[in-house]
Amino acid sequence: MDFSGIYPPVVTPFDERGEVSYDRFEENLEKWSRTGLAGFVIFGSNGEYVFLTAEEKLKLIERAAKTVPGGKKIIAGTGCESTRETIALTNAAADAGAAAALVVTPCYYSDKMNKKVLFNHYSMIADNSKIPVLLYNVPKYTGVNMAPDLVAELSKHPNIVGIKDSTGNVAQIGEILNRVEEGFNVLVGTAGALYPALAIGAAGGVLALANIAPAECVDVYNLFKAGRHTEARDIYRRMLPVNTAVTATYGIAGLKAAMDMLGYYGGPPRSPLLPLDDEGKAAVRRILETAGLI
Amino acid sequence: MDFSGIYPPVVTPFDERGEVSYDRFEENLEKWSRTGLAGFVIFGSNGEYVFLTAEEKLKLIERAAKTVPGGKKIIAGTGCESTRETIALTNAAADAGAAAALVVTPCYYSDKMNKKVLFNHYSMIADNSKIPVLLYNVPKYTGVNMAPDLVAELSKHPNIVGIKDSTGNVAQIGEILNRVEEGFNVLVGTAGALYPALAIGAAGGVLALANIAPAECVDVYNLFKAGRHTEARDIYRRMLPVNTAVTATYGIAGLKAAMDMLGYYGGPPRSPLLPLDDEGKAAVRRILETAGLI
Amino acid sequence: MDFSGIYPPVVTPFDERGEVSYDRFEENLEKWSRTGLAGFVIFGSNGEYVFLTAEEKLKLIERAAKTVPGGKKIIAGTGCESTRETIALTNAAADAGAAAALVVTPCYYSDKMNKKVLFNHYSMIADNSKIPVLLYNVPKYTGVNMAPDLVAELSKHPNIVGIKDSTGNVAQIGEILNRVEEGFNVLVGTAGALYPALAIGAAGGVLALANIAPAECVDVYNLFKAGRHTEARDIYRRMLPVNTAVTATYGIAGLKAAMDMLGYYGGPPRSPLLPLDDEGKAAVRRILETAGLI
Amino acid sequence: MDFSGIYPPVVTPFDERGEVSYDRFEENLEKWSRTGLAGFVIFGSNGEYVFLTAEEKLKLIERAAKTVPGGKKIIAGTGCESTRETIALTNAAADAGAAAALVVTPCYYSDKMNKKVLFNHYSMIADNSKIPVLLYNVPKYTGVNMAPDLVAELSKHPNIVGIKDSTGNVAQIGEILNRVEEGFNVLVGTAGALYPALAIGAAGGVLALANIAPAECVDVYNLFKAGRHTEARDIYRRMLPVNTAVTATYGIAGLKAAMDMLGYYGGPPRSPLLPLDDEGKAAVRRILETAGLI
Repeated sequence: MDFSGIYPPVVTPFDERGEVSYDRFEENLEKWSRTGLAGFVIFGSNGEYVFLTAEEKLKLIERAAKTVPGGKKIIAGTGCESTRETIALTNAAADAGAAAALVVTPCYYSDKMNKKVLFNHYSMIADNSKIPVLLYNVPKYTGVNMAPDLVAELSKHPNIVGIKDSTGNVAQIGEILNRVEEGFNVLVGTAGALYPALAIGAAGGVLALANIAPAECVDVYNLFKAGRHTEARDIYRRMLPVNTAVTATYGIAGLKAAMDMLGYYGGPPRSPLLPLDDEGKAAVRRILETAGLI
Repeated sequence: MDFSGIYPPVVTPFDERGEVSYDRFEENLEKWSRTGLAGFVIFGSNGEYVFLTAEEKLKLIERAAKTVPGGKKIIAGTGCESTRETIALTNAAADAGAAAALVVTPCYYSDKMNKKVLFNHYSMIADNSKIPVLLYNVPKYTGVNMAPDLVAELSKHPNIVGIKDSTGNVAQIGEILNRVEEGFNVLVGTAGALYPALAIGAAGGVLALANIAPAECVDVYNLFKAGRHTEARDIYRRMLPVNTAVTATYGIAGLKAAMDMLGYYGGPPRSPLLPLDDEGKAAVRRILETAGLI
Repeated sequence: MDFSGIYPPVVTPFDERGEVSYDRFEENLEKWSRTGLAGFVIFGSNGEYVFLTAEEKLKLIERAAKTVPGGKKIIAGTGCESTRETIALTNAAADAGAAAALVVTPCYYSDKMNKKVLFNHYSMIADNSKIPVLLYNVPKYTGVNMAPDLVAELSKHPNIVGIKDSTGNVAQIGEILNRVEEGFNVLVGTAGALYPALAIGAAGGVLALANIAPAECVDVYNLFKAGRHTEARDIYRRMLPVNTAVTATYGIAGLKAAMDMLGYYGGPPRSPLLPLDDEGKAAVRRILETAGLI
Repeated sequence: MDFSGIYPPVVTPFDERGEVSYDRFEENLEKWSRTGLAGFVIFGSNGEYVFLTAEEKLKLIERAAKTVPGGKKIIAGTGCESTRETIALTNAAADAGAAAALVVTPCYYSDKMNKKVLFNHYSMIADNSKIPVLLYNVPKYTGVNMAPDLVAELSKHPNIVGIKDSTGNVAQIGEILNRVEEGFNVLVGTAGALYPALAIGAAGGVLALANIAPAECVDVYNLFKAGRHTEARDIYRRMLPVNTAVTATYGIAGLKAAMDMLGYYGGPPRSPLLPLDDEGKAAVRRILETAGLI
């Protein structure tokens, strides 16, 4: 199973009343599908998955399966706090059309999520899942880090085929690459580390930035693959301020506002998240202009 | 609405296959109901609420409403990540028999949970809830802290009637007491701060420890109320090592193991949490013995 | 050795050029000495000790020894990063007139300051010190916490006579009290926990607030000792906003500004710390007025 | 001023009684000087600078100035908590033979070290220093992070010529590179990010690992410069486990033990740090063997 390349963790469109807008979702997917993206992660952290019901999730997967061209993969985020609910949602996602599952670490009892607990959790899920499993390590949101030795052990499971590591910690990504099984897909989870991660051997990235700058993210990947290091690096560095704006500084509200400025449908986040205010929008616009995206 | 007194955030019993054991749940409630507890919090952090489906939650509330004597309050934890899902669950809990709702702060996007976001979130919930709302502040699990000025503003809402503050930070509890509206119920969320919190004016506590030592927790409360400070303090201090064991050190697995040792049904936690190992059980038993609970 | 009662960790006066103002230091001590304070901690965190040379420290101790009346204790902060430098400074402080030493945990290599390292460090200092040693636990500044079991072991050393615990964590203070040797002085290191700490058995406090409100701090202590709980609690709660302002919110600059408003010499902090700006001063003044200190 | 290339933050040798061993220090410098290292950082965090007196520091600089060949730079760590003490030590270091000063952020009052405070602090030091100043950003030890906009502003000062950024955060290093003045030296402060940092434009590194593997670190640098990316990357990845062992896992004690195994003088750290125990030594040895250093 090859998951190399660039994926956006796609945002979930809501209308002004907070209802999922399935049509806007399809329209975004159609636009993105005309780029060199390798596929789509539905229900990453930027997809506001914690605000969606299981029913909404499955319907979104079905719509994506209908819309996305065959060559592009659909990866569904299916991690829940309990092992049993994760297995159930993973298999329902498979039935709805997902090619693989991205499973975030449980996090509410973060201080108890030690190596043994996580090993058991992921092993049980992988044993029972109809589709391949990718690990999802995002300590910024979960307070839990999956260390390289744990990832290495899990990489031996035939149904665990990769990881999205959103730490931005290149030493950790390097150590994961050193230790995992051949063919295990190591994807970086932030554009802030995209080119460096490729440079040390990562297979690709799942990048919030790819929602708004898919061409630039794909260019970094392709130029790197072609050995055109300087060009890849320059695009990477030009995109850094944009990435900071639509992740750390302004978050999902900023990412959605940028989408609205760039011809996609962003719309408001779901409550309790608030839409970006006018000052924030002006700042995001300036950053997009400086980076040449507008 | 008076919520003074001592409440356990009751554990949720599971059988060996991980199914909710409603009968064991009722039996525990019956035993606890013979003590001086003021009521029960169902689906606090110690109730493993993040592992339960909405259906399981509602059925547990119905069972509790059937079992618990009239004078004792049933408070249901109904906080979800999204505002809309929280409102829906709160009203369903009300229909199932809950007298009040305990609403934890959303936490996945913890860095965006600022004062304005939380004010809006809780205001919308309180506006739309059929039953009174208690705030639930537990940074240990959520990474979000509700500062005294936010709590003070929310205390003006007629349908927000109190807070469970689990920080153990007595200065913060004191400042909350200084600023909230008359009659607002300030409950401490850890037995580690029970007597000090009562001493500075708190109305009571929601205490994991009250699952296994309800009589002792109630004694601290009643002795304090009777002005018998030294006796209250001595029981409080004797219970501190027990509280540390069944919260910080061994967590829910430790709390459930202690319940099994003390004539309640504890049973295993739900996966991914693991049951306490034999070494842990021996340690918990020694601590219970030293404290005079066994 | 009895160290019960209330101590201010006295600020160090600097003139506009940043030189230590020994005369202002003496004048402050004279004013404070007319209150019921049990003594003075020179070179606590609020004394900007990290900005002082050893020569300045010793001269300040000498001036204090000359100025402070016999019944009041002079405790000097003598903790350095290395064990050897701490021992040397402690004995020099003893020669200069300090009655006891307050020794902060080393902190630069905070992740290596485990129980064994700290036990060895304090044991060697206590073995070699001419004066009694008090432990100083202040994770806010050091990133290191001394757990109750470590404190209990160190309390067996005949030359370690107490602790200043600035965590504000009453459960931890209670566990320390449960485990230390008879006569070991447990002092709370923040006014935010003063009354609760006394209520559970602490011997007193070393309080930044006592620089500006010594009478109120001493009143809380004396009223508690007299069993007048409600009066003690009310003063404690009235002082909480003042304490927050001159510690967490505005820090040393705020504390010094408040001193200037209340008839003491505060003056500027030493660079890199900056003096409080006008907006901050206005806020501090309002808080002092609301609390009845102005 | 060009500070590109690889520097070890050299360890400070102590004998069994804890005295500085100046002769062992010179011998290490002589060995290292036969490699392609660009120079030496004396009194980085790995130099245990917080345990050294000013006198010891100056004497060590003098010895280094005497020993190190002319082409290799001597950079002295001179950061103290106060601005005035930092200036004094920096100029004394210049007189003793240092070519430049590496100035760590003050850290005891970390919560007050905001942008304005740090801008003033570094500006005053640079204004008054006889030698060029390099910023030193090491949040792991200080709890303070210098954000790219602050670094960019400071890079305009003619006497501030570079930064050692030890965060390992490549996105931050990229943003610093994007914003600083032409010719500003951006050095990565951990071998865990060496090759990725070079790949995005860093000028070199100050690496604990270069104490024990100077040839390998220099090879990564030279191969990268020669466009031999794959070879550079492979050495980088082979060294990652060694770097983790002698920094995060075993710290200075581990680094010194590794030096003893590799023909340098490591010796014990200064108290309160403890030497590595036998189990730790065996683990370090295995890691060095696996990496081909033994």
